[in-house]
Amino acid sequence: MKRSELVAALKDFPYKDLRFAKVDTHRGLRRDFAEVIYAKGKTPADIVAIARVLRESGHSVLVTKLDSAKSKSVRKELPWLTYFPEARIAASGFPPRRIGNGRKPEMAGSVLIVTAGTSDIPVAEECFVTLRSFGIPARKIFDVGVAGLHRVLAHRKQLQAARVIVVVAGMDGALPSVISGLVGSPVIAVPTSAGYGASFKGVAPLLTMLNSCSPGVAVVNIDNGFGAGYLAAAIVRNK
Amino acid sequence: MKRSELVAALKDFPYKDLRFAKVDTHRGLRRDFAEVIYAKGKTPADIVAIARVLRESGHSVLVTKLDSAKSKSVRKELPWLTYFPEARIAASGFPPRRIGNGRKPEMAGSVLIVTAGTSDIPVAEECFVTLRSFGIPARKIFDVGVAGLHRVLAHRKQLQAARVIVVVAGMDGALPSVISGLVGSPVIAVPTSAGYGASFKGVAPLLTMLNSCSPGVAVVNIDNGFGAGYLAAAIVRNK
Amino acid sequence: MKRSELVAALKDFPYKDLRFAKVDTHRGLRRDFAEVIYAKGKTPADIVAIARVLRESGHSVLVTKLDSAKSKSVRKELPWLTYFPEARIAASGFPPRRIGNGRKPEMAGSVLIVTAGTSDIPVAEECFVTLRSFGIPARKIFDVGVAGLHRVLAHRKQLQAARVIVVVAGMDGALPSVISGLVGSPVIAVPTSAGYGASFKGVAPLLTMLNSCSPGVAVVNIDNGFGAGYLAAAIVRNK
Amino acid sequence: MKRSELVAALKDFPYKDLRFAKVDTHRGLRRDFAEVIYAKGKTPADIVAIARVLRESGHSVLVTKLDSAKSKSVRKELPWLTYFPEARIAASGFPPRRIGNGRKPEMAGSVLIVTAGTSDIPVAEECFVTLRSFGIPARKIFDVGVAGLHRVLAHRKQLQAARVIVVVAGMDGALPSVISGLVGSPVIAVPTSAGYGASFKGVAPLLTMLNSCSPGVAVVNIDNGFGAGYLAAAIVRNK
Amino acid sequence: MKRSELVAALKDFPYKDLRFAKVDTHRGLRRDFAEVIYAKGKTPADIVAIARVLRESGHSVLVTKLDSAKSKSVRKELPWLTYFPEARIAASGFPPRRIGNGRKPEMAGSVLIVTAGTSDIPVAEECFVTLRSFGIPARKIFDVGVAGLHRVLAHRKQLQAARVIVVVAGMDGALPSVISGLVGSPVIAVPTSAGYGASFKGVAPLLTMLNSCSPGVAVVNIDNGFGAGYLAAAIVRNK
Amino acid sequence: MKRSELVAALKDFPYKDLRFAKVDTHRGLRRDFAEVIYAKGKTPADIVAIARVLRESGHSVLVTKLDSAKSKSVRKELPWLTYFPEARIAASGFPPRRIGNGRKPEMAGSVLIVTAGTSDIPVAEECFVTLRSFGIPARKIFDVGVAGLHRVLAHRKQLQAARVIVVVAGMDGALPSVISGLVGSPVIAVPTSAGYGASFKGVAPLLTMLNSCSPGVAVVNIDNGFGAGYLAAAIVRNK
Amino acid sequence: MKRSELVAALKDFPYKDLRFAKVDTHRGLRRDFAEVIYAKGKTPADIVAIARVLRESGHSVLVTKLDSAKSKSVRKELPWLTYFPEARIAASGFPPRRIGNGRKPEMAGSVLIVTAGTSDIPVAEECFVTLRSFGIPARKIFDVGVAGLHRVLAHRKQLQAARVIVVVAGMDGALPSVISGLVGSPVIAVPTSAGYGASFKGVAPLLTMLNSCSPGVAVVNIDNGFGAGYLAAAIVRNK
Amino acid sequence: MKRSELVAALKDFPYKDLRFAKVDTHRGLRRDFAEVIYAKGKTPADIVAIARVLRESGHSVLVTKLDSAKSKSVRKELPWLTYFPEARIAASGFPPRRIGNGRKPEMAGSVLIVTAGTSDIPVAEECFVTLRSFGIPARKIFDVGVAGLHRVLAHRKQLQAARVIVVVAGMDGALPSVISGLVGSPVIAVPTSAGYGASFKGVAPLLTMLNSCSPGVAVVNIDNGFGAGYLAAAIVRNK
Repeated sequence: MKRSELVAALKDFPYKDLRFAKVDTHRGLRRDFAEVIYAKGKTPADIVAIARVLRESGHSVLVTKLDSAKSKSVRKELPWLTYFPEARIAASGFPPRRIGNGRKPEMAGSVLIVTAGTSDIPVAEECFVTLRSFGIPARKIFDVGVAGLHRVLAHRKQLQAARVIVVVAGMDGALPSVISGLVGSPVIAVPTSAGYGASFKGVAPLLTMLNSCSPGVAVVNIDNGFGAGYLAAAIVRNK
Repeated sequence: MKRSELVAALKDFPYKDLRFAKVDTHRGLRRDFAEVIYAKGKTPADIVAIARVLRESGHSVLVTKLDSAKSKSVRKELPWLTYFPEARIAASGFPPRRIGNGRKPEMAGSVLIVTAGTSDIPVAEECFVTLRSFGIPARKIFDVGVAGLHRVLAHRKQLQAARVIVVVAGMDGALPSVISGLVGSPVIAVPTSAGYGASFKGVAPLLTMLNSCSPGVAVVNIDNGFGAGYLAAAIVRNK
Repeated sequence: MKRSELVAALKDFPYKDLRFAKVDTHRGLRRDFAEVIYAKGKTPADIVAIARVLRESGHSVLVTKLDSAKSKSVRKELPWLTYFPEARIAASGFPPRRIGNGRKPEMAGSVLIVTAGTSDIPVAEECFVTLRSFGIPARKIFDVGVAGLHRVLAHRKQLQAARVIVVVAGMDGALPSVISGLVGSPVIAVPTSAGYGASFKGVAPLLTMLNSCSPGVAVVNIDNGFGAGYLAAAIVRNK
Repeated sequence: MKRSELVAALKDFPYKDLRFAKVDTHRGLRRDFAEVIYAKGKTPADIVAIARVLRESGHSVLVTKLDSAKSKSVRKELPWLTYFPEARIAASGFPPRRIGNGRKPEMAGSVLIVTAGTSDIPVAEECFVTLRSFGIPARKIFDVGVAGLHRVLAHRKQLQAARVIVVVAGMDGALPSVISGLVGSPVIAVPTSAGYGASFKGVAPLLTMLNSCSPGVAVVNIDNGFGAGYLAAAIVRNK
Repeated sequence: MKRSELVAALKDFPYKDLRFAKVDTHRGLRRDFAEVIYAKGKTPADIVAIARVLRESGHSVLVTKLDSAKSKSVRKELPWLTYFPEARIAASGFPPRRIGNGRKPEMAGSVLIVTAGTSDIPVAEECFVTLRSFGIPARKIFDVGVAGLHRVLAHRKQLQAARVIVVVAGMDGALPSVISGLVGSPVIAVPTSAGYGASFKGVAPLLTMLNSCSPGVAVVNIDNGFGAGYLAAAIVRNK
Repeated sequence: MKRSELVAALKDFPYKDLRFAKVDTHRGLRRDFAEVIYAKGKTPADIVAIARVLRESGHSVLVTKLDSAKSKSVRKELPWLTYFPEARIAASGFPPRRIGNGRKPEMAGSVLIVTAGTSDIPVAEECFVTLRSFGIPARKIFDVGVAGLHRVLAHRKQLQAARVIVVVAGMDGALPSVISGLVGSPVIAVPTSAGYGASFKGVAPLLTMLNSCSPGVAVVNIDNGFGAGYLAAAIVRNK
Repeated sequence: MKRSELVAALKDFPYKDLRFAKVDTHRGLRRDFAEVIYAKGKTPADIVAIARVLRESGHSVLVTKLDSAKSKSVRKELPWLTYFPEARIAASGFPPRRIGNGRKPEMAGSVLIVTAGTSDIPVAEECFVTLRSFGIPARKIFDVGVAGLHRVLAHRKQLQAARVIVVVAGMDGALPSVISGLVGSPVIAVPTSAGYGASFKGVAPLLTMLNSCSPGVAVVNIDNGFGAGYLAAAIVRNK
Repeated sequence: MKRSELVAALKDFPYKDLRFAKVDTHRGLRRDFAEVIYAKGKTPADIVAIARVLRESGHSVLVTKLDSAKSKSVRKELPWLTYFPEARIAASGFPPRRIGNGRKPEMAGSVLIVTAGTSDIPVAEECFVTLRSFGIPARKIFDVGVAGLHRVLAHRKQLQAARVIVVVAGMDGALPSVISGLVGSPVIAVPTSAGYGASFKGVAPLLTMLNSCSPGVAVVNIDNGFGAGYLAAAIVRNK
């Protein structure tokens, strides 16, 4: 096969060109989960147009980092979207019509979402709604930071039963190290920008988590509840 | 004792589960001071619910980093809270009903709170109200920065009489080094975000204080008047 | 159960006290993989003593970040250790005597280790030897950085077949985003300190990876091949 | 020639002194493109005064980083300016009256502007309008980030045909490395502040781009679409 | 009293002028502990000269951050100094001849020094020797990091009995938060430069500790075991 | 003279205690210029009270970083203050009643204030008004940045005639190096927060200036026009 | 064309698999210049193996960042390499056998390399040898920093004649702004790690250059003379 | 005068072209002090060649940052240089043959150099030798850090008599603020890299000094004793 043929072939990969956006309608096939719409820096009209392309090609729609004002404009056009204000996500109808390539994912276990404090809850909810929109059940344990260690120890059974644990924490970010030391499952750590002063909007817990003295911890971006949910989904689904 | 029994035992440690929060009602016993409510990232309803749990279990209530607007909603529900606007703290009635485990702390000495400038006063007040809510008396000396050294030297007797000195300073953060060099007592240094440009919202005084050429200085987070007060209380109370 | 009983119970948790170290002989049971010895900051004598405790309690031994000179002293005492110079790991005999709690892990899939450049190979080898010492097979694809994209595209089938992909990259750290966009599996990204100038010893690829535009990527510490291997193992083993 | 004569001579270099500004009316001659007005930190009156001097000396006028409110005041005085809201630029009439020294630049090739996401479009538009105001045609390809690699590969022919490629990307900033690996032309990389958390307002893509594993990439300031356009113009025009 | 008299009076404050150094022989009186010699950047001859002045004025001598080579030269001149290689301290004879102002400090309680890992031991030893040279007894618990939480919980009684706890930790720096949550005593946290990559030579644990979610923690400089010991001494001695 | 006498003497140093502030009425005598009021973090009432103390003790009054809204409240109480909106300074009547210790400073030369761009003018004006309030004449040259080098070279004579040159620049901060290379006088460099992206609110020009390849440059804080003016005054006045 | 066919086609793209390295023998065709060997993190044996593959497929060989010791081992095997110690480059015979795709590049102009100081010369030489190995002539002007502006002004004619100017500077990094203001050509700025203290190993000049007040400047990595040369080559060659 | 004439004129400005260096023999005339040789990054041969040019054109020679090994090679060739090992400077014969333009500078006052600790002495000596090589007398007061405030207060008369004070300090960098508060003279603050941990090689004192709460302080680069001396000379000489 010649070089020119290859370039031609690559052009046949499916995406929908909206000029300002190239919607990757092939992603559901390639990655099992469809393209997700990141709302920041997009107008409501942009979001609506992309969401329609995804919907029309038979995918679930998930819009993240969507603030309340923008959500109103979007849902006026797309009433089939449900808005979760704490998670700042709009998602298409539950149960999800089609996850990824249409195969029902056979789960390899369950996801547990834990927060250190109450300020970390919105990020945890973003993670939770992401998982739910993928058709993956998850449980939540909130406010079990290390300042009162018995609160986390009291949930030890649930921690050890989970297939994957997402730990959301700001300030000192110490909880993922502690939890990881108690279990054999992978821990996805999400630093949050909760805190002030030398937390530097999440840098402090981010560094804590990257330096966890307990192996088995991986880290995603500050406040990235969606990314943690996506990764947890990729771990628990069976191939 | 077997592993399963231990896990069961840990579950019996007291905390009150409000779903979004697990109130550590055991903390007063364990640490002598009850759990404190950090208001940032919590709704007024959250704060009210947690405060009630603490109150009902016989503890003093202290709400920190509470802005003026939120304080109004909270006090409509909990009129027994007093709000200190400069300190941004709401605290239950004075004198405190119960500090920690109920034992009246026998003080090992007194606390002195010093600021370098007038901009540092709100953080100093946060420290002061924290101490007062724990039933610990403290004195204040404001605006004795090193640009006019005789102002701090004039208070030398009070400095040397104190059991613990909290020094609050922004900008160059030089005051804790100077004061520590004059006394034998521990100095708790609180950097503030007062200043501009290369103060980087408190990073400059934070680094100054961590590098104090005079030993006997420890540092808390930027603007963390509450933490300084808590620590001072832990030092002066007798065990 | 009373508080005093609980404290007593906790004391019965197994660890071996060597004064300078408390070897967590209980970890294999709790986490499926035994405690691992981090060699930096430890003398050869320290390492030998800890390794013996682990060996005697029936665990595999894994010593990481062990430089060549120190490895000689250690292996004089412990000839049953194999040293892997590129990975800077010493590990007890292959096949592993006992992984974690003795259960042979039933693998949920395979691990693929990919590097962007040749400078990233030592970190990838650290990951590989870690997995091998846990009895988990892994494959390697080296030097397929994005400057010659067809090299990574040529391995697309292997990438899509893997259960977990570890991507090791320095400099721009762009490879994990690209690979993650091609597959549905979780990607563990390991930034390396390869590079110079504004790579700031791995900070540049670390930030790139945390900000991956393709979801499904999690990040471990700079040069932390061991941590990536540990996490991959936690993902692929069945519970 | 004596020192005093030299100083005298230097005074004869043309600029127009407006007290608060010294308009460099000589720049068109020296650099081929006239002085450009950076609107931040200038009042509408300042901008109007400088624009008039440039216009009167026969140059095109380009005002960058001009927000919508300020543009209204400016255009009330200078109705011959066209405002491009997405690019935040006001420019004098199209086609440009005079570019630089009046010579029509003979182009050495064409410019292609590519963005990784839709959030990067305003910066790309700033680049586009800059080029257009210099009389240089440019093409745009938006939203071809590396999460869906086939979208960028589908444009391979256009990429390889361009004389210069401007690549605008936030978040992981991986696109310039990928594109540069596909072509022989110089790539100008523009990091954007799109993103959140550990993108640190553009620092993450900035570092990615500076560390590109593919040579042939140069970087301009974060969000500096104008600078990228200016540089592209300097490359494609013939001397 | 006039200004000129004051200046004259200040001159009478005792210090010994060695030209390159002004030894503060008054410090013992003012601060209860005599001046301490920081060895970095000083020649052996410098150290010897200063130590002699202190000795001659009846004080204990403590030399910190003294490496092994330099200690040999110093002790050739001053055989009455004992060198502690792990702590990198040289101190005058035990028991101390005179602590501070000669009053035997009546201790208000005991000091406990805890480390997270074995790499943190040298910093803990620096703290321990400092306290011992001041005549203050201290106990040590090493290697009880949060990855094996039962190790720290097993020492709960000792932790709760201590008047002050010094916690030394590198990497994630999570141990001070955990310990502080268990006790009522003040916790002095010492970040160490143990670790690699994103620990940034101690910055990660420093930030963790400054952001401790458990109040009652104060922080000293990275690797500053001496400073922690000095502060602990200032807390436990009675005034 | 005994220690207790000294402490007593120090108390006699003049300052006025307003509880929230200790006004250093002795500063004019000690430093030749009276205490200056930094308005940030002070209420209008604070400012009024301090200004009255200074005025009553016969000093000039200078209030810096005073925004327009606050200036109105202040001047309602203190109509003898003049407000300079661009410099954000309020100062007592011109000509100054009393500068420092009342001696008319015999000037050792003149001050020249130069800016690189028009955005730097407010900082330059802060410097200018500061000097003027001290009774020191200064000249201004604005907008002579290095992008059009002939503009600065055209002012070479004025540059070489000045006793001190204050150079105010944001963005690349290159102007102080260039000017310092042309003259023998000291150059005080003031970085400004003008700029965007990788200027990091003035960090970029700050570093440029600290690393000037031309000796004779000293730097003050970002946007600190007042500090530059104060320092220039200290240099030009004769002792 | 089906997906499976595409993957097959991609496999046919030419690269040579050496296990530890995948040599991109297709790069010369795609990018006009062949793959370059970055020596850091590679053993001499690695370098020799890769160089042979490139040589055998008819390409020029360029090895960068090659220190003197390693160069000896390499050249023992590959005597046809010339080593340039100051540039730390080894290159195959001059004149180059084949540049990129074999077409003699028709140059669109000449390259001028300028340094601010003598410490910047090694980086400039790396740039120079890179260009020479591509068959592109370049001229050099060294040590014309802005502290003696007449030195750079004296070369104004040469500066204005160049098609591209590479400016290499450490410390304040001010030279690219100054030169760019004098010419119409693109300026490639290379920050160097020359300097000390607050130059932070090249961060200071890097930021200066990114914030150049004179448009037309693009920046490459610190000390990246090779990258600047590669980019300059991409600009001057005709397509 | 026409443009071409100007360029010609600029060429006549005196400098000596050594290819690798352009020695600015005009600087003595322009700036009163001759060009100074920065030894880092230069070979002994480079230094010798430049020094000869300066000597031959009748200037004093000053070589800074010259380590001991290199000084030997240099002085073998140039025996008329004196080497000051602590200051790491080599300077031509004392008294200086010619300072700047030959005019004997009429001093406007004296310079005082103060250090906080003994580790700061080498930087202070660099400043002292610089001043001495310019024929300017200076006095030194070492080791008067703020930990023992009476040591600095004891020198109050000398401090108030000085025309300029150079304050050299590492660690907390608090001394310049304190001294500036005592005097009316300008204070040049020099941060040093003495210290460890969170001093970040001088960043901590640098920030302290930039944020001095006492106006009248300007800052030079970390460890830049030469720059402080140069600036002090520029201040004290009469024009």
